[in-house]
Order: sequence, then structure tokens, then C-alpha cells
Amino acid sequence: MERSPLALPFPALASIAGVRIGTASVAYKKWTRDCVTLVELAPGTVVAGVTTQSKCPSPEVELCRAKLPQGQARGLIVNAGNSNAFTGMSGREAARAQAARVAEVLGCNPDHVFSASTGVIGVPLPVDLALSGVTQAHAALGQADWLAATNAIGTTDTFPKAATASAIVAGTRVMIVGIVKGSGMIMPDMATMLGFIFSDAAVTPALWQQMLQAAVAPTFNSITVDSDTSTSDTVLAFATGAADHPVLTSMDDAGADALAAALADVCRQLAILVVRDGEGAQKLIEVTVSGAVDDSSAKRVAMSIANSPLLKTAIAGGDANWGRVVMAVGKAGEPAERDLLSIRFGDTLVAEQGMVVPGYDEAPVAAHLAGQEVRITVDLGLGQGRARVWTCDLTHGYIRINADYRS
Amino acid sequence: MERSPLALPFPALASIAGVRIGTASVAYKKWTRDCVTLVELAPGTVVAGVTTQSKCPSPEVELCRAKLPQGQARGLIVNAGNSNAFTGMSGREAARAQAARVAEVLGCNPDHVFSASTGVIGVPLPVDLALSGVTQAHAALGQADWLAATNAIGTTDTFPKAATASAIVAGTRVMIVGIVKGSGMIMPDMATMLGFIFSDAAVTPALWQQMLQAAVAPTFNSITVDSDTSTSDTVLAFATGAADHPVLTSMDDAGADALAAALADVCRQLAILVVRDGEGAQKLIEVTVSGAVDDSSAKRVAMSIANSPLLKTAIAGGDANWGRVVMAVGKAGEPAERDLLSIRFGDTLVAEQGMVVPGYDEAPVAAHLAGQEVRITVDLGLGQGRARVWTCDLTHGYIRINADYRS
Repeated sequence: MERSPLALPFPALASIAGVRIGTASVAYKKWTRDCVTLVELAPGTVVAGVTTQSKCPSPEVELCRAKLPQGQARGLIVNAGNSNAFTGMSGREAARAQAARVAEVLGCNPDHVFSASTGVIGVPLPVDLALSGVTQAHAALGQADWLAATNAIGTTDTFPKAATASAIVAGTRVMIVGIVKGSGMIMPDMATMLGFIFSDAAVTPALWQQMLQAAVAPTFNSITVDSDTSTSDTVLAFATGAADHPVLTSMDDAGADALAAALADVCRQLAILVVRDGEGAQKLIEVTVSGAVDDSSAKRVAMSIANSPLLKTAIAGGDANWGRVVMAVGKAGEPAERDLLSIRFGDTLVAEQGMVVPGYDEAPVAAHLAGQEVRITVDLGLGQGRARVWTCDLTHGYIRINADYRS
Repeated sequence: MERSPLALPFPALASIAGVRIGTASVAYKKWTRDCVTLVELAPGTVVAGVTTQSKCPSPEVELCRAKLPQGQARGLIVNAGNSNAFTGMSGREAARAQAARVAEVLGCNPDHVFSASTGVIGVPLPVDLALSGVTQAHAALGQADWLAATNAIGTTDTFPKAATASAIVAGTRVMIVGIVKGSGMIMPDMATMLGFIFSDAAVTPALWQQMLQAAVAPTFNSITVDSDTSTSDTVLAFATGAADHPVLTSMDDAGADALAAALADVCRQLAILVVRDGEGAQKLIEVTVSGAVDDSSAKRVAMSIANSPLLKTAIAGGDANWGRVVMAVGKAGEPAERDLLSIRFGDTLVAEQGMVVPGYDEAPVAAHLAGQEVRITVDLGLGQGRARVWTCDLTHGYIRINADYRS
């Protein structure tokens, strides 16, 4: 797969105290690359997580959901090449067996081992490979860096995606590193966005979960490539507590807001990187909706625009087709008044009060649309509700990736 | 535009007593073809209608909505090449002026004149052309047949679409003829599905509206090409009352069920013809969902499947990708139990009870997917809810039509 034209270079990333990584190759597919990633987390590590809204989740998602309330983690195991989704009892057994093996090699409680798998749907995870992967990756603990881990969790990604941020908490610098995979929602039977975030922050599980949920809403939950949702989407955040600051227990504690902001920053970078690797993407599109009756209404309108195939194909064609923005606002089902609507492409006001602006000049808009980053701003003129989401254009590349691989 | 491979021949259609049609060419676009259609309806004609759910409707839609409660029609005027949507006060004035001119030439109340326009968004309907079109089309009344009218209301349609049915009401044969245009939701700035149905039935406005609404839900409201919704979608049904049977006033009257069934049959044929002309369509896809908790839940799951770009691209590629069906069921947000789900492609059971069937043989499925008509059946195993919807595959043709026309 060709590298996305929107790819960014892999960033320089510090190591996180309390985190050790090993990867292994067991060929879930016809791959020689590493596809099993084991992360050992120091005793006392706290975990927070958010999983797919799908009503048909994978066994790994179910295991994560069951273990998250305890908030404790010692290990993470990730399989790439097989999502283990929709595989009945044998898939569930395979996931449980692999987590048990991780607990064994790390000498920890199986409830403290978290799992994620991504790849083909409908084929049970081969237990022998899954267990052998744990053994091999354990032997290699400490040998894999962030780039190796990011490559090992990827499937159809065209570039490795990671981000970092730091925060000062009570005079101590706290680090956060996040890695993510995902480039559409599903590809030639390969599924899913998986994001893993690591920090040395010292924080209670409840507060960490609260911070993650707040961070995910305007970031991972504000992106769309094709409106499709995987059975396996998972974001897990681990805080090892190795940083030398008092344990944060509430958002009122000094430095909690800084940590939350840094976590949100990492989530935002990772989320936008996923869109930058959207299947067939040639342009990154930022959609901002203001003036809605409330924020959630603004978000639904923004998502209606971001998911419109007609708008996304127009952007692919470099066409300032603001009529399609009107259409997408109109179909969202949210409060909207045609005659109060204003629309901007880039910095140019295109339409307001229900019609095109007098003397509308398409030239600056066409110049904006010729770039790789497109901004569409809609003001509904009704209230204070506001939301921003990101998507990519819909191109022949998307069809090629998703329809042509067999024909 | 190349004729859709799913096109059907134009049917033989009887004339409807009380309906006269004239068309005219006024070149809203650089067209020499006729693009204004005037229909004169006999005094006493009853009208029912359903319009777009868009919150940003065109002035024509607003006029129809305002006039429909009276239930009386003497004229219909249709413009192709300019949708008059999102054009502010001048667009509203143009629509009113054109309807007034129709009332003048037909010698009727302007409240009994219905309008529809389809084409470019954001350019006010040119009043001089609109009025001249009425004059010319009026002079030609009685000269246009159904095919001429169907061609004159079309924009990017690749073939003319019409359907007919009849019913015996109290020993009298009643005829219904419907014509429709639409091939995506919007195209190079051309919008909309418009459907016009004509019958000689004698029926009260309230009952006719009731019949139309019942007919539209499982037909026009059960199709999707790309999930986008026009600002101008309109279906109007006219009943001239020329047929010699007692006026139907309630569904309990003899023959009312037969008329309702015939109306529903015409709506169904027309709706599926629109999908057959879906932008870039190579395959017609019928999605049936049963076993949902209720019918509306079944419909939402069916639409989630029918609108999934990943599923639609898989079908385009002839790929029996049932994992994407699971994905689309899972993301619908409706009650679903992974381990109760069963999926069929054509007549072949592919997956049940949360996993692929033992000894699954892809050969008959591949053969089914190689055809032009694909059936996907999902049983949720929860209740008696059931729905059927139609869509088409998502192909390079869609991208070509919607993105490449400028680049």
C-alpha cells in the first residue's frame, strides 16, 4: 500500500518509566513482520479504556470491558492480522487462553492483562500461534522501541502513527506517549482503530478514566473516515505511577488539569493521524459547526457533513460545492434555519442568510481546496453550540482498496 | 452519461383521463431538450404529497407543503436544470410568480398549482425563463406523452423511469401511472428525487394522503443510494376522479384496499428504478432484516447495512464479506445479540449463532454476487420486527460522477 500523501514523520519519543515492550512474529497472515506485541507494565499501573459502541464486539473488547472496572494493569497483548471477531466460543477461549499465558509469564493476575486484536473477522485466533507469540515476545521484552511496537500493531496502515505530550504536575515532568493503528474502519477483512497511551503519571483509576473519557469525545469520537464502525475499536491508557509526584485523585488537585490537557492533546494528535491515513485520503477536512442549539446538536450536524459521500467526493474534486454542505446540514435532523445559515470554505464566506454572498468570488476558495488541508465552517445562527470533527475526502483510492482487491 | 447497466425498458403506459401534459425548452442549462413540464389536471383532482425531511428545503417544497392540506390540484409545473434551492427571497418570489402564471393560463386558484424544481443549488430560478416556459408548455398541452414528460423532468438520469398498475374498484378499472427522476441525491450541482403519480381514481384527499403515506414508507423511504438527502425531494400523487366508481372515503370502502395496493406497487417500482439508476450502480442490493425487536428497529439495521460504504464496496468487488454485515449490524445502535445473528447471501446461509457456518462453501455465494441483483438477509433472532430496503453498490463510477467532473 502506498504511503498516504497526508503522512507525517514518526516523532521522537521518550521512553516511559515502568513500560517494557517486546514484539514477535507468528504469521497470523502471510507476514514475516512482527504481529504480536507484549507490553509489561510496572506493578501499580492504572488503566482506563474506551471501547467500540458496536453491538457485535470482539471477545477482546468484552474482556477489556470486564476488567476495566478494577482499573489495574500489568500486561497488554496485541495481535495484528486476526481480529478474532465473530468467532463464537472458540474465539473467546483463544482470547482467554492468551491472556492467561501473559499472566503466567509476567507472574500477575489474569484480570490485569488487557488484550486487543485486529485483522480478519470470522476466523478464530489460532491458539497455538497466540501462545507462542506471547512466549517469544516475552523473551524479547525491552528490545522493542515505540516505532517497532507501532509497526507491530498495524495492519493496513500506510505509515506508523504516534504522538507525545508532557505536563508539569507538582513540579515533576510527566510524559505521555501514544501509538495508534487504523486507516479506515475495515479493510480487506482487516478491522479497527486501536490506540494505546502510556504515561508515568500517578493517578487513581477513577480519575484517569474520567480524563480519558473527556479526552476521547472531542478527538477519537470526532473523526470519521467512512462512517463505518469496527467491532474491535479500543483505546487503552496506562499510567505507571513512576513519576515522582503525589497521586492525583481529583480534577481539583494541582496539576490534574495539566495532565488532562496533555492526555487530550495526545488523543487529538492520534485521532487526526488516523484520518491522515484514511483509506484513499488525499485531503484532511476539518469541519467546524457553531451556532447550534447545543454542543451535541453541533456535533451531529458536523458528523452529517463529514459523512456525506457527496461532500467528500466534491472535496476530492476540488469543488467548492457549498450546496452539498446545505444538503448535509438539512439532512442531519437537527434544528437548523435555512435563512440563518452561513458557510465558509477556508477563510472565505461563501453563503449567508440562506443564499450565496453577493459578488461571490470562487478563486480564493478554489485555491484553499487545492491544498491538502481543507476547512469547512458552518454557523447555524441559532445558539452557542459548537463542535469540530475531522474527516478525509472520498476518492478512487477508497474504492480501489475496498472493492478491487478481489476483482 | 452512460446508460445504467441496471436500466429497464420504458413500459407501455395508458393515458389517464383528466391529465394533459405539455413540455417546453427554455434552457435553464445549456440544453436544447425540454426542461419545463406543465400538467393540467381536470377540475376536482385530489392531491396527496410527501416532501423531503431536509431542514433546508427549497421554496417549491415549502409551497407544496403549504398547499397540500387543501388537497386540491389543477396544475403541476416542473423545472429541470435549476433546483431554486438556497436562493433566498428571490428564489421564493420566482417560484410564486411561476405558480401564479400557471394559475393564470389554466384559469384556476394558485393554491391549486403545485411546483417542483431540480438542478443547480444556489442560483435563483430565472423568472423570465420560468414564465416563458409556462406559456410555451401551455401552448403544447396534450402533445407530450409519458415518455416526453419523464425525459423533461430528468437531470442526470441515465434512463427514463416509469411504472403502472391498475385496480378494480367497485367493478371499475382504475389506472395509476407514475414517473420519477433521480439517480443519486445530488450530482454536479443537480439534485433530487421527484416522483409524480397520476390516477383516475375517485377518492377523498384525506384517504388519498393516507394511502400515499402508507405506500411511501416501505418504498421511497426504503431506498438509499449514498445516504444523502436532497433539499427538494418530492412525491406528489394526483387522482382526477374521472373513473366511474363511488368516491372512496375510507379504507373500509370496497376497493380501497385494491387501490392502496396498486399505489404501493407503483411506488415500489419507481423507488427501485431510482436505485437502478444510482450513480455508478453496477448491482442492485436488496437487504432484508428480520427478527428485530420491532419493524422500525429492523429498518434502522437494514439502512445501516445499506448505507455502509465498506459493505457497498465489497459487493462492488463481488466479495462475500459477511464480516462487514456484522460490522454494520453492530454499528446500527439497535438491539442485537452477536451470538443470535444469522446472515445469508442469496439463498446461502453464511453465518449463524455468532460465527461462520461449519464447512462454509463460498462458491454459491460468489456465483450469487457475480449477478446484477444481490440479496442480503439478516436475522437478528430477537423478535418479529422486519424490514426490507434497497441500495446499490459503491463503485468508481460514483467517484467519477461526483468528484472528477471538475478535476
